This record gives sequence, structure tokens and C-alpha cells, in this order.
Amino acid sequence: MDIKMNVKDLKEVTDLLLTLVTEAKFEFSKKGLSVKCVDLAHVAMIVLELNKEAFLEYDVTEDTELGIDLEKIKDFLKNTSSTDVIEMKKEDSKLLLTVGYLSRTMQTIDPSSITVPKVPSLGLPAKAVVPTEQFAGGIKVAENISDNITLHITPTEFRLYSTGDEDSTRLIIPKDLLKDLKCDSEVKSLYPVDYLLRFIKAINSEYVTVNLGTDYPVKIEFDICNGKGTGVFLLAPRIEE
Amino acid sequence: MDIKMNVKDLKEVTDLLLTLVTEAKFEFSKKGLSVKCVDLAHVAMIVLELNKEAFLEYDVTEDTELGIDLEKIKDFLKNTSSTDVIEMKKEDSKLLLTVGYLSRTMQTIDPSSITVPKVPSLGLPAKAVVPTEQFAGGIKVAENISDNITLHITPTEFRLYSTGDEDSTRLIIPKDLLKDLKCDSEVKSLYPVDYLLRFIKAINSEYVTVNLGTDYPVKIEFDICNGKGTGVFLLAPRIEE
Amino acid sequence: MDIKMNVKDLKEVTDLLLTLVTEAKFEFSKKGLSVKCVDLAHVAMIVLELNKEAFLEYDVTEDTELGIDLEKIKDFLKNTSSTDVIEMKKEDSKLLLTVGYLSRTMQTIDPSSITVPKVPSLGLPAKAVVPTEQFAGGIKVAENISDNITLHITPTEFRLYSTGDEDSTRLIIPKDLLKDLKCDSEVKSLYPVDYLLRFIKAINSEYVTVNLGTDYPVKIEFDICNGKGTGVFLLAPRIEE
Repeated sequence: MDIKMNVKDLKEVTDLLLTLVTEAKFEFSKKGLSVKCVDLAHVAMIVLELNKEAFLEYDVTEDTELGIDLEKIKDFLKNTSSTDVIEMKKEDSKLLLTVGYLSRTMQTIDPSSITVPKVPSLGLPAKAVVPTEQFAGGIKVAENISDNITLHITPTEFRLYSTGDEDSTRLIIPKDLLKDLKCDSEVKSLYPVDYLLRFIKAINSEYVTVNLGTDYPVKIEFDICNGKGTGVFLLAPRIEE
Repeated sequence: MDIKMNVKDLKEVTDLLLTLVTEAKFEFSKKGLSVKCVDLAHVAMIVLELNKEAFLEYDVTEDTELGIDLEKIKDFLKNTSSTDVIEMKKEDSKLLLTVGYLSRTMQTIDPSSITVPKVPSLGLPAKAVVPTEQFAGGIKVAENISDNITLHITPTEFRLYSTGDEDSTRLIIPKDLLKDLKCDSEVKSLYPVDYLLRFIKAINSEYVTVNLGTDYPVKIEFDICNGKGTGVFLLAPRIEE
Repeated sequence: MDIKMNVKDLKEVTDLLLTLVTEAKFEFSKKGLSVKCVDLAHVAMIVLELNKEAFLEYDVTEDTELGIDLEKIKDFLKNTSSTDVIEMKKEDSKLLLTVGYLSRTMQTIDPSSITVPKVPSLGLPAKAVVPTEQFAGGIKVAENISDNITLHITPTEFRLYSTGDEDSTRLIIPKDLLKDLKCDSEVKSLYPVDYLLRFIKAINSEYVTVNLGTDYPVKIEFDICNGKGTGVFLLAPRIEE
């Protein structure tokens, strides 16, 4: 396995995974790269897919699993420019990273020691495609209000709100300002705000597709690497007492 | 009470008040907004006046006093852009803040629980109109020299100096480089440098008008909200032993 | 002694010296300024030379030694702009710094209390002139790998590498991408990475000239003050067990 990609793209992938885990299993196949991870508390999952066209060079002749310490990747990328190209090459149990004349050899982690989640198939009844900047604002403003935030889709609106002891915040976007809205009857669930905060700080996608069902996990789909790949973020609901 | 103003202007007002207090009484009358506050130690006061023309919309039919937690306003504004417009609307004992599709409902504070100072009328004999950037430099440079700083106006100069055990700093601006100087005979007083530091970091005014008398509070006048309003900062002197 | 120089240049000199010491002896002669310092552990030295043409005004009629608290200079410069000009004037045992209307009077330190190192004359056999940006990248990337880093010059390459328990990093620049390379037979030594890190963060020179011998101190020459002066950094080797 020997591939080249933009530093910017690898940084985005790494930052997203680091919102949930410090180690991840990178699965390189002939089609491309796939990474799935779940946080220790099993509250959230991230699935990233980057097909081989997203790479500048992609030489993978057999399926290759790499257990990667994400902080080491991040550390190395700090010393590179976002316009650089990085080569990642497997050498026995080591991974060699090279940018220009600079390189790092990293011990990889036994892939079988890393938990890879089974991604559930969820038949979520409602969907809203929301501008990420507004979605992010709605979550950030809730930070000091409550530990939880409600996502809510109706046939005419996307809503996101948080209610504390004295104060409350809300974001309400009408249908005609959404890129898309599909909803027969309204659905809503409560989610932990800290997971959403870390997630929205790591994404670069212009829009997020929020798939929602009442008291179901939310499934948020987004673009990665300037549209060259896709990501899915799944977050378990909190059931109100 | 239902008003609209620039986010930038509300941020400036909030940051200024936060140099002395965390809660303030906003007094809306038919003429405009007035806020007066004094710090817990009763060393400094700030008075801000913003007449109704400074607002984009101003619907105040009766005098309205609002007790406001300034940190909550600041928190909400963090998630907005300085070019945004904010609506503030009183709803019973709550205040509703709205920027675009994003809003926050805040519990207000009982206005009678907030100390509003009586602003003394001071017949200060000397006045210098000083460029804020230079005034700020003169105060910042004194930060690690001494707890106190001397303001000094003579018929020919504005002076600001600080004397420590070994070192000293000073700013001396001759009359012809001041916007204005009125002084029959020289006056000077000593002031706590920490209050001045916090104050000069919060102002945006191009000039400050320093009104001074020997062993009297200093009265510093400045513009707020790009000249649409006015501010006064009063600071008690330290009497040298 | 009464001189004027760019704030930017004095800041660069001060930041370089602060990587090793907090007090330094500034030696002004008719030719210019010279400063030599060694860190407490006697592991590294810096020698800076700035001839009188590097100053905007230079009035030094007799050799003058000034013991200077570098943090005080740094503190004062924080309140100035990098395009400003600073005047430094000796007044008895004090140093007067002036930028525009702002000034600070500093007590100087007894110069005889400050250690000035004897700079050894080293006949180092190899030399590489390396772009600073790449040299800095090679050092930064080694930060979390090991306490030590190896500098290595061969007749065809400049190398810099670090080896930890599991991971390693390296920078290898071939001869034709160096500004200059002189090496008959390869030389290499081990150096403490923390000293190099602080050093490369403080320099502005476009290139560094690395003079190297096996198990000898490294002597790194660089430009200061936009080429108006010169600097030398000497660092003792660590002998491998």
C-alpha cells in the first residue's frame, strides 16, 4: 500500500475521527479508503468513505488494514502546509509518512485491537438538508444552556432548540431556506450537545443532511475532502424521563 | 419594548460594562438607551447613552428597565457576525434576542436589585483630548511598573507616568499634537492602573477627553457605537501618602 | 551612548537572546554592538554582531557595556509597532528607551555580574547552507519523538533525524537543493532537540549555515536584522553511550 493525497484532506479525516477516538482502523481496498469508529461510551459513530479517485496516487493491490494513532498523524501534519501532498506507505508493521524531504516512520497498531462498529441500518422518516454554518450556530449557542439539545423536523421547518432552567435558545429554519426537506409528520429527539459541538467544529461540508426519527439516533450525512468523499455521523438519542 | 441594533454596537456596550460589572440595568426611554454602573468597590463608574437614532428600529412606548446578565448577551453574540442585526424584545419577565433564524430567551434580573450610581457633578479645571491609541500605549507600558499611574495636565502638555522601585515609564504629548487642551494651571492625580487597563482595552473611540483636577476623580469622555452614542468613565483618585 | 534602531531589529535581537538567558551584556563600541551569552547549563551560546551601519543613529564615543534585563525590553516593545524607531540612551546607571512620545527608564544591571562566554574556535570539517524553513520543519517534527536529534552531513546530502522507541523522523536534503555543501567525508553528532527548537523559532534568517564535526559542537551561522548583522549559535553535542 502506497498512496498520495492532499495534506488538507488527511487533516480533515484525522480531525473528524479525533472527535470520537484516538486510534482508528484505516481500511484500504482496491476501491478506496474506509474508516469506521465508535466512541468509548458507544454514543456516537463516524463512518468516512474516500474512493480511490480522491487520491493523487493510489497503489493498493490487496486489502490493507492499518491501526493508526491519530495524534501522531496530527503531530506530523502540523509541520506541513495545507497545500502539500503527503505520501503514506506501509513498510512491514510500520507506516511511512513523507511530505517533500520530511518523513516520519510510525509504528502501526494491531488492527484487531481496535473496535470497529457495526453501522446500524435505520429507516429514519424525516430529512432536512441544512446549511452547516447555521446548524453550527444553533448548536454553539446552546452550549451553556443545557447538556441536551432537541432536533426537530416538521413538514414546514427545521428546528433545533435547547431549554435550561431559566433560559432557552432555538434555531428555526423555514422549508424554503433549506436545500431540501422531506417530512410527512413531525419527528423530534433529544441529543447530547457536547458530541454535536465537537462534530460541527470538525466538518468542512457546506451542508449537512439531518436524518431524524423520534427517539432514534440521528444520522448526519456530510461531504468530506471538498466533495471527494462522504461522511456519516450517528448519535444516540437521550430519552426524556 | 422591541428594538433592533447592530450586533457590533451591542457588543461594544456589553464589553465596556463588563469591565466593571456582570449585571447592568438597561433603561430604555422614548429618547433612547441609558446605562449607568459602578463597580463593587465603588472605585469606577461607566455611563453610556445611545439615543434612539442609533437604533435600526426603536419601539419603546413606555420607560422600560431591564436587569441584564451581561455574560449571557456576550455568549449569544459570540455566535453572530459583527455585521448582523440583533433584535431585543421584552416578553413579560424575559428578554428575547434574535439574530436571523437564531434566538435566545433570557430571564431578566429584577432591576431593583442592581445598584445604579448617582453620577457626581465635578467641576474639573483641566481638559485634554488625546488620541486613544497613544493614551492606551501609555497605560499598557506601565502595567508591570507600579499599581498606580499619574495623569497630569499642564498648560503645554498631557502627561501620563508611572514610577516603580527601579524603573519608570512616561507618555508626554505636547499641546500641538493634542486635539484640544484647556488648562490654566497644572493639575495631576494618581489612579489605579488596572481599571484604566481594562477600560482602554474596551473602547473603540478615536479620541478620549480627559477631564482632570488634582486629587479628584478623572472623568474620561469617549464616543461609542461609531459616534452614535457617548460614554463617560469616572475613576476615583488614589491619594498619595 | 545614544543610538536609534528599528523596533523590529531590537525585538529580533532580544527574542534570540531570551532563548538562552534573561539578562545580557550589550557591548557598544565605535564599530557597533556585540552581545555574547551562554545558558546557565553551559550547553549553548549565542553571539550577535550588529555594526554601526545597522543603526539609524549611532552616537557611541567610548566603549560602553550595558547589563540589560531582556524581559523589560520585551515588555516595552509590546507597546510599540514593528515599524517604529526606538532610541536607547544611557543616563548614568539607567537606560532610557523612547519610541515617539512614550518612554521607559530602566535600571541597568552591573555588567560584571553577567557571564560572557569565551567563544571557542572550532575547526569544523563540514558545512551545509540549508533553507531555514526546511531546517525548522525537520526539528519541529522531531519534538515528540526523542530528546535528541542527529545532524548529519555527507558529501551528497544534509540529514537531520530523530529516533524514538517506536517511531522516527528525518529530513534529507540532497546537495543540489542546498545553497552550499562542503564535506569531504561524512560527519554527524547528536544534539538536544529543545535548544534547537527554541533557536529556530527565534530566527528570521532565510538560510542557516550548519558547520558540523563528529562529536563536536555544531556552529550555526545566520543573518539577523534583515542581513544588517550576523549571528552565531553554538550547541554542545550529546555523546551517545
